[in-house]
Amino acid sequence: MSDAAARFAEIAGDAHVLTGAAVPEDYAHDEALPAVPCRPAFLARPGNAREVAELLRTAGEFGIPVTARGSGTGLSGAARPREDGLVISFERMNAVLEIDTVNHVAVVQPGVTLAELDERAAAAGLRYPVHPGELSASLGGNVGTNAGGMRAVKYGVTRHNVVGLQAVLPTGEIIRTGGRTSKVSTGYDLTQLIIGSEGTLALATEVIVRLHPRLPHDATVLAPFADVEAVLTAVPDILSGGLEPHILEYLDAQTLTAISEHEKLSLGVPESVRASAQAYLLVALENRDRDRLRADVDELGVLLDRLGASDVYVLEGGAARRLVRARENSFWTAKAVGADDVIDVVVPRAAMPEFLRRARETARSRGAAVAGCGHVGDGNVHLGVFCPDPRERKELLTEVFSLGMELGGAISGEHGLGRTKSEYFRALEDPVKIALMRRIKDGFDPAGILNPGVLFPDPGRADDHPAP
Amino acid sequence: MSDAAARFAEIAGDAHVLTGAAVPEDYAHDEALPAVPCRPAFLARPGNAREVAELLRTAGEFGIPVTARGSGTGLSGAARPREDGLVISFERMNAVLEIDTVNHVAVVQPGVTLAELDERAAAAGLRYPVHPGELSASLGGNVGTNAGGMRAVKYGVTRHNVVGLQAVLPTGEIIRTGGRTSKVSTGYDLTQLIIGSEGTLALATEVIVRLHPRLPHDATVLAPFADVEAVLTAVPDILSGGLEPHILEYLDAQTLTAISEHEKLSLGVPESVRASAQAYLLVALENRDRDRLRADVDELGVLLDRLGASDVYVLEGGAARRLVRARENSFWTAKAVGADDVIDVVVPRAAMPEFLRRARETARSRGAAVAGCGHVGDGNVHLGVFCPDPRERKELLTEVFSLGMELGGAISGEHGLGRTKSEYFRALEDPVKIALMRRIKDGFDPAGILNPGVLFPDPGRADDHPAP
Repeated sequence: MSDAAARFAEIAGDAHVLTGAAVPEDYAHDEALPAVPCRPAFLARPGNAREVAELLRTAGEFGIPVTARGSGTGLSGAARPREDGLVISFERMNAVLEIDTVNHVAVVQPGVTLAELDERAAAAGLRYPVHPGELSASLGGNVGTNAGGMRAVKYGVTRHNVVGLQAVLPTGEIIRTGGRTSKVSTGYDLTQLIIGSEGTLALATEVIVRLHPRLPHDATVLAPFADVEAVLTAVPDILSGGLEPHILEYLDAQTLTAISEHEKLSLGVPESVRASAQAYLLVALENRDRDRLRADVDELGVLLDRLGASDVYVLEGGAARRLVRARENSFWTAKAVGADDVIDVVVPRAAMPEFLRRARETARSRGAAVAGCGHVGDGNVHLGVFCPDPRERKELLTEVFSLGMELGGAISGEHGLGRTKSEYFRALEDPVKIALMRRIKDGFDPAGILNPGVLFPDPGRADDHPAP
Repeated sequence: MSDAAARFAEIAGDAHVLTGAAVPEDYAHDEALPAVPCRPAFLARPGNAREVAELLRTAGEFGIPVTARGSGTGLSGAARPREDGLVISFERMNAVLEIDTVNHVAVVQPGVTLAELDERAAAAGLRYPVHPGELSASLGGNVGTNAGGMRAVKYGVTRHNVVGLQAVLPTGEIIRTGGRTSKVSTGYDLTQLIIGSEGTLALATEVIVRLHPRLPHDATVLAPFADVEAVLTAVPDILSGGLEPHILEYLDAQTLTAISEHEKLSLGVPESVRASAQAYLLVALENRDRDRLRADVDELGVLLDRLGASDVYVLEGGAARRLVRARENSFWTAKAVGADDVIDVVVPRAAMPEFLRRARETARSRGAAVAGCGHVGDGNVHLGVFCPDPRERKELLTEVFSLGMELGGAISGEHGLGRTKSEYFRALEDPVKIALMRRIKDGFDPAGILNPGVLFPDPGRADDHPAP
């Protein structure tokens, strides 16, 4: 056992530190399709913040790079470690510490899953509304990538619902940021800076999230449209009327068919309608009152009709839940049908039709294809990318990301950059901003031990995803 | 004319640069009660971002400190310049560049006032919901302090509603952060870092804000309670039921009386009720449908009765608007009745009763007094501080801020630290966090020209607010 391993075992306990071939293969990757798995030299499963701090201090001493890991459900490779690195897995720090029904917050450890938090909040009539597809995802991972999901159109993303953190700096200090309050104007907002930093600035060891009232009634409506332009023209009117949908999703015909088949789902849309519908809008409404919900659904139906929907299907309980679930699981569908990557460019929603049209054309001109769905209220387009040749795919993605940025958007709306998209970021982003972010990184992590290769290049390694 | 002044005039034009005694006295202060006014050596009113960049570069060359100024309505002295400094006033950069009704955002220059933005958004049936008391405040200033206001309980504060910035770094580069999208996970969130940084990191030259549906119907309810504990016990139930109040304010009897008298307002609360009511809850509801609003008001009335209100007054149009306005103007009332400072400690709302009780006791034990009101949904307590002796007041505020922090809160919920609260911050905050913020500051502003004396000490000057 190396000196480092011995020190790690002293800190977290022998049972919770593994090295070399004893590290299970799972820790070599997350769910990012194009990331090359890489088994880390060390795995530690600390039990508390103090242990995390000691592990980081020790890693710093030995110059060992550290990658944090929640449930490993990330889609960009931010949890893929380096082969000589230490993975800090938060699986043992998985307690819901408190459901605070006065301040309407939950205090959780980073290893808590969304499913578990939801169950605990539900018992108090409350809800943590951030709902990315994968409910086995951990809160710590959600903080790392600033996770979003379908309900962001009403409730915002992780950034809007995390009010405080306990975090460990790579230099070993434990800090607390924010608190059980939804606002603070006292110095720089370190909470917001750490959220979305993909394990490169600090590791969250406690997360305080806002809880919202859990509205008991909801309904789901599916509306076929002639094409995506028609869907997107309808969106501003649906939002400005005040119906406050908590789900507002676009699916192209190909994706709806794929997920319906994958999930063996019958939606009751007749063949005649499907033949002419290139695009679908999925809308979910919720209310604390059943009669108000019914009236809202009626109003939505009239509105959709006026906005050009070829029909309006109100999905009943089971079918609605299964379709929403299927949409959430669309990553697995994309994987099952052989996608080579999944991307989630975000653009202003007015730019979505142009983005989709030009992204499709670009793919087609290269003999590749992109297909998908998206959080249409947020302009967040999820596309499966079908382009097996890595070099060709790199060129295609460079073009698609450039297009998104040219239209006023960004490479990722909620998946983050991880190891698989950081090179594009460095190639395409304003160098002034990258240099500024680099100085922030250096301010947190002078030795550069936190997740080298994510956001910034890894000086210690030839990169497995060289710059496009 | 000094070399520096000549260079500033070259950049912004002779008509837009003033020096020495020609600088109007207004630019020597904002509305912070205890700040000592200080006329700056230079005032520039640039017309665009390029000019701002040139001014900053030139100030850097000459080592001249720079203070940004919007409308000068700040309450913490963040816009009070140094006597050898340059004030960059955004009064000429006051255009609403676009009300974008597809993406539901407004793009504004920093000198635009909230009143002006509201008028422009209203014409499109939309609303920018951040509503601090002073509607002559500028959007640039709101970004600087992360301004809040009464509607934060439903809509959040500036941080939750600004989605993009154009900003000038103190080194003269112009960057764009975020965009017309409500989410992004692509590198560190520079938008969020600049918001609330009180002119110490970068100067915003364009602000993109989210617009919300403008709900046409609203109602205001005033409920007297025996004491503040009873008010605060009611709050979680009001919020968890899903009524979604957009205003939820606590006022102590003394403050309600003062603002009623100051605004010559008759609320119809009989003397018998007033005699026994030590605390009031002000609740406003809004809806897109008049009948639903009526039903909600009825439900709220029943709920308040059950929660211990001694009565429930539904205020009609004129009286409601005037009371809300009076509450918004409570700073002016506090000033008129001779408050020596106004503070806005934020604590978890469950801790508000203890905070108020102990803050009052502490003041009383020193022969001083605190009285006020607060955003009770957010735990943000606004207190007028009556304690004329500066040394005594410094000790009192140190105790009150320590108490707020001990209860899990922070020195300021929305006013910021400015020149008047930064010393307390440095004395009371975790030194690890201050050192981290300092490194972030150095990463943006290596020469330290942006607002020295705010957040961090001013190495160039003996401070006029020495550490407590």
